[in-house]
Amino acid sequence: MGYLVEMGLLLTVSYDGTNYCGWQDQRNGKTVQEVLNNAAGKVFNCKMTSLGASRTDAGVHALGQRIHFILSKPNVIPIGKIPLVINGYLPDDIRIIAATEVSDNFHPINEVKSKTYRYTICNTRFANPILRNYTAHVGRPLDTVKMTDAVRYFIGEHDFAAFCATGTSVTSTVRTIYQLEVARQGDVIEITISGNGFLYNMVRIIAGTLVNVGISKIRPDDIVGIIVSRERIRAGKTMPPQGLALLEIVY
Amino acid sequence: MGYLVEMGLLLTVSYDGTNYCGWQDQRNGKTVQEVLNNAAGKVFNCKMTSLGASRTDAGVHALGQRIHFILSKPNVIPIGKIPLVINGYLPDDIRIIAATEVSDNFHPINEVKSKTYRYTICNTRFANPILRNYTAHVGRPLDTVKMTDAVRYFIGEHDFAAFCATGTSVTSTVRTIYQLEVARQGDVIEITISGNGFLYNMVRIIAGTLVNVGISKIRPDDIVGIIVSRERIRAGKTMPPQGLALLEIVY
Repeated sequence: MGYLVEMGLLLTVSYDGTNYCGWQDQRNGKTVQEVLNNAAGKVFNCKMTSLGASRTDAGVHALGQRIHFILSKPNVIPIGKIPLVINGYLPDDIRIIAATEVSDNFHPINEVKSKTYRYTICNTRFANPILRNYTAHVGRPLDTVKMTDAVRYFIGEHDFAAFCATGTSVTSTVRTIYQLEVARQGDVIEITISGNGFLYNMVRIIAGTLVNVGISKIRPDDIVGIIVSRERIRAGKTMPPQGLALLEIVY
Repeated sequence: MGYLVEMGLLLTVSYDGTNYCGWQDQRNGKTVQEVLNNAAGKVFNCKMTSLGASRTDAGVHALGQRIHFILSKPNVIPIGKIPLVINGYLPDDIRIIAATEVSDNFHPINEVKSKTYRYTICNTRFANPILRNYTAHVGRPLDTVKMTDAVRYFIGEHDFAAFCATGTSVTSTVRTIYQLEVARQGDVIEITISGNGFLYNMVRIIAGTLVNVGISKIRPDDIVGIIVSRERIRAGKTMPPQGLALLEIVY
C-alpha cells in the first residue's frame, strides 16, 4: 500500500501581461494561471492547480510573481532544473525564473511580508511606440520634484479607503506603505512602492494621484486630506494597467 | 492655368518593429513604409510615397527614423500639427514625433551626417518576458569591462568588410565609427554606436563580436586582426533583430 507524498513548490514567475486577461482563471479569455497550470501539468503528468500570491489584472505585468503548487506525487526533477523544464512548455511571454521547496503548511498569500510594485510613465508629447505596452503615456510635463515631495504623506500605516476601487468588499482598508519613490530617467518616470499589502487598484490610484501632483492640479500636502477623507472621488484617476508591474514579493 | 506646388516634408518617426516585415515596401507582409504612406495619403488626400533614411529589417525598432515625402499640392495643415494629424491615422506602434519642411533638393539618404543605433541585451539566466521583443537574451554572464575595452578598436575609419552580411553588393565597405559605448544597467546591456553609415547587418555583427569578447571567447585586441582580415567568418554571429533600435539620424 502506498503513502501520500506531498511537496510544496514555490515558483517565481515573470510575465508580460499584454496578451492575458490577468492572472486568475476565469471563463472568458486566456489567463496566466491557466497557461502555467497546463505547463506544470504536462511536466508532472497530473492536474496542477496553482495559487498565486497576487491577482494581477489584465494587461498588468510581473517580474516576481510567486505561485504555489502542491505536487501530490513523487517528484523526480531536481528543484534547480524545474524552471528550465517548465519553461520548455511555456510561451515566451511567461518565464519561471526560480523554484524552491516549501513546507506543507506554507500559504503563498497569508505569509507575504511585503510586495513591491512599479508604475511606469512615459512623459513625452507623443507616446513612444516601443514602450506603449509597458508604460502609461502622460503628454503633459510632470514635475517630479513635486511628486517626490508628495510621497512622504503616503508612507506609513493609513486607512487607504480613498485609494481603493469602489465596489470592492474588503474587511479593512488599512495598509502600511514601507517605501515609495519617484525616479525620472530621461522621459521615463518610475513610481516604486512597497507595502504589506495593497487594496484593489490602490497602486494605480496612487499613481494617478501623484500625476495630479505632477501637473500641479493638487499640492503635495493635499495628500493628507485625501487620505483622511476616505473618499475615492478625491484621489486621482485609476491609471491604465499596462504601466503596472509586480516587481517582488517577500516572505 | 495652375502652377506646380511642391513641398518637401521631413518626418521623424518612432516605431515598434515587432509586427512588421521591416521598413521597406515589399510584396509579402505589412511594412512600416506602407502603413505610413497610407496614413499620409489619407491626410493629404493623394498618393504619398515616402523615402526612408534607413531600411530597418523585420523586428528592428526605431525611435528616430527619418522619412521624406514630397507633397505635390498645396498644404493647408500647419507644419507643427502634421505629426498629430497623421498619428490619428496610424496604429499605436507607429508614431510621428516631429515634422519639418525641407528644400526641394533635399535627399534623406545622401545628406545623412551620422546615424546612431542601439543594440540591447538582456543578460539574465532566463529571458525577461517584458523585454523579449526589445532585447536579445544572452544567458552567459557578459564581462562588460572587457567589452568596453574592445570598443576602441572599432572607432575611426576602417574597412568593415568582416562586419557585413555576406552576399551584399556595395561599392565600398569603408565606414567611419564616431562613437561606440557599452553600458550596463542591472541586467540590461546597451551597446550604442554612431557612424557615418553602416553596412548591412553591421551593427548586429559588431554586437555579436562584442558578445564574444564578453564571454571571453576572444580577447579585446583580437578585434584588430578581425577588421584587417576582412573575413566575415572571423567576426561574431549576427545578433537577432529585436535587440536593435535606430535611435537618431543627424543631417
